[in-house]
Amino acid sequence: MTTPTLLVLGTDPLPRLGRLTGRVRVEYADESTLAARLPSADVLLVWDFTSHAVRAAWPGGGPRPRWVHTASAGVDHLLCPELAASDTVVTNARGVFDGPIAEYVAALVLAFAKDLPRTLTFQRERTWRHRESRRLAGTRACVVGSGPIGRAIAGTLEALGVTAALVGRAPRDGVHGPEDLDRLLARADWVIAAAPLTESTRGMFDARRFGVMQPSAYFVNVGRGQLVVEEALAEAVRRRWIAGAALDVFETEPLPPDSPLWRLPGLVVSPHMSGDTVGWRDELRAQFVELFELWAAGRPLVNVVDKQRGYVPGH
Amino acid sequence: MTTPTLLVLGTDPLPRLGRLTGRVRVEYADESTLAARLPSADVLLVWDFTSHAVRAAWPGGGPRPRWVHTASAGVDHLLCPELAASDTVVTNARGVFDGPIAEYVAALVLAFAKDLPRTLTFQRERTWRHRESRRLAGTRACVVGSGPIGRAIAGTLEALGVTAALVGRAPRDGVHGPEDLDRLLARADWVIAAAPLTESTRGMFDARRFGVMQPSAYFVNVGRGQLVVEEALAEAVRRRWIAGAALDVFETEPLPPDSPLWRLPGLVVSPHMSGDTVGWRDELRAQFVELFELWAAGRPLVNVVDKQRGYVPGH
Repeated sequence: MTTPTLLVLGTDPLPRLGRLTGRVRVEYADESTLAARLPSADVLLVWDFTSHAVRAAWPGGGPRPRWVHTASAGVDHLLCPELAASDTVVTNARGVFDGPIAEYVAALVLAFAKDLPRTLTFQRERTWRHRESRRLAGTRACVVGSGPIGRAIAGTLEALGVTAALVGRAPRDGVHGPEDLDRLLARADWVIAAAPLTESTRGMFDARRFGVMQPSAYFVNVGRGQLVVEEALAEAVRRRWIAGAALDVFETEPLPPDSPLWRLPGLVVSPHMSGDTVGWRDELRAQFVELFELWAAGRPLVNVVDKQRGYVPGH
Repeated sequence: MTTPTLLVLGTDPLPRLGRLTGRVRVEYADESTLAARLPSADVLLVWDFTSHAVRAAWPGGGPRPRWVHTASAGVDHLLCPELAASDTVVTNARGVFDGPIAEYVAALVLAFAKDLPRTLTFQRERTWRHRESRRLAGTRACVVGSGPIGRAIAGTLEALGVTAALVGRAPRDGVHGPEDLDRLLARADWVIAAAPLTESTRGMFDARRFGVMQPSAYFVNVGRGQLVVEEALAEAVRRRWIAGAALDVFETEPLPPDSPLWRLPGLVVSPHMSGDTVGWRDELRAQFVELFELWAAGRPLVNVVDKQRGYVPGH
């Protein structure tokens, strides 16, 4: 076997490849050079996972990478119909973000329960304003998304005494199907969006679904911005259909400076950082190196995306 | 037995006494009338637990309440030498605040780990600024105070994957003695103050102890303000001896508007609210009613404070 060519989409230099050094020819592409370089690459590593360039650059036929790995949990940014129809294998970073995102969701839920954003506002005003806060234990969460991230979120919330229901694409052990969603939303204190972006999840949190929720409920999105109809969420918060929300992901990222979401009372805006704890890039690199070892040895890859469904199926 | 007189210190009307209605004569006192009314009371309920009036008003000898209950965990606001030397029994609200305070500490620790205060600052500035945050699981906490509140804090942090060491007045099963404190502080990521205020804990968090901590460590005080030398803490945060701190209690409460603590970067100020979740006053009332039933039946009280030590001893 000749030395394979690894094409890296991303302008950040890739961290050390460790064991792979000398066993692979590394080339870099940015969004403008990706289309020209794809045909000669054996493997594509989507290191800049904020880019949507793969969708536009993927060759319809002819030479193309046999394997695409993305350093992200979501694959919506690269799965174009041509890639989905091809025999190219797509893998993702399943497993790296579960624990960090679960902690991040717990941080937001506890911050809302304890009214921490208002505490910081009162502090800026040097105002001593005692309030009663909420007990978290004994409350109910509805976690939409039953993959490893959703399950980690549910597990962390359960560790804090919350009863967490998981909702997935279809009912299975410990997971509710979509037919239970509205009933669960109607009694949830915390609604957490952690689903992959697919044609069946796009825009699922719309005006009707926010209307089903309790006025005391908080909504948290750590999945993808397009799961939510942002204008409907803004309206639901403004009209106090729900108590508040935290968004870590948005329809357009970075969130434009003129977006009304920045200044909406009751809304916490964070810059798509929920999974990114110190050392995460090293973990992503190490995971890719392990996958590469499997691929180079001709062994089956793990974390293989079902390209029709748009995520890695199963437990 | 004649109908006993219950004197309530506090201007807030006492919530319904339920079962006790008609079995007790209720009188109210504020700070100015307390001294005059104490001698004729059988029981004193310190409902306004922010008041220090009992210390000044307690009669040196002669008629006095045989039982004093405070609707708080701490008893430092009422334990004067004359009360400590008398045969009057003192009880506290042990148990009501444990879970709420543990959740509040978890909220603060997670907020620091996930850099939430800065996220809110960037949001106000409409600035999209991605940062790496910290993983909480695998970090170390040192919880100073081994009563029910300290143990609940340690338990909640452990549920989030933190290794939590408890420090108490003396070593016992699962509790370190003061001789281990500096060693534990030196390697803690989170230092939590949850000790009662006694002569041996007053001012224990001083410049030397903040100097022992790691530059990456955060300090959280949910005990009593006087556990901390505030000027030393402010200096430690200013000089970045530690990464930051959250104070829910202060030497002077409410914190005066001109205190530099309000505006110190890296410091979170909250208004002594960590234990006060919705329904807490009902829980305090119910707890007092249960204690009163024991007292009226001549049975031994629970939650009895060791007036020499200044807290309820034992597990």
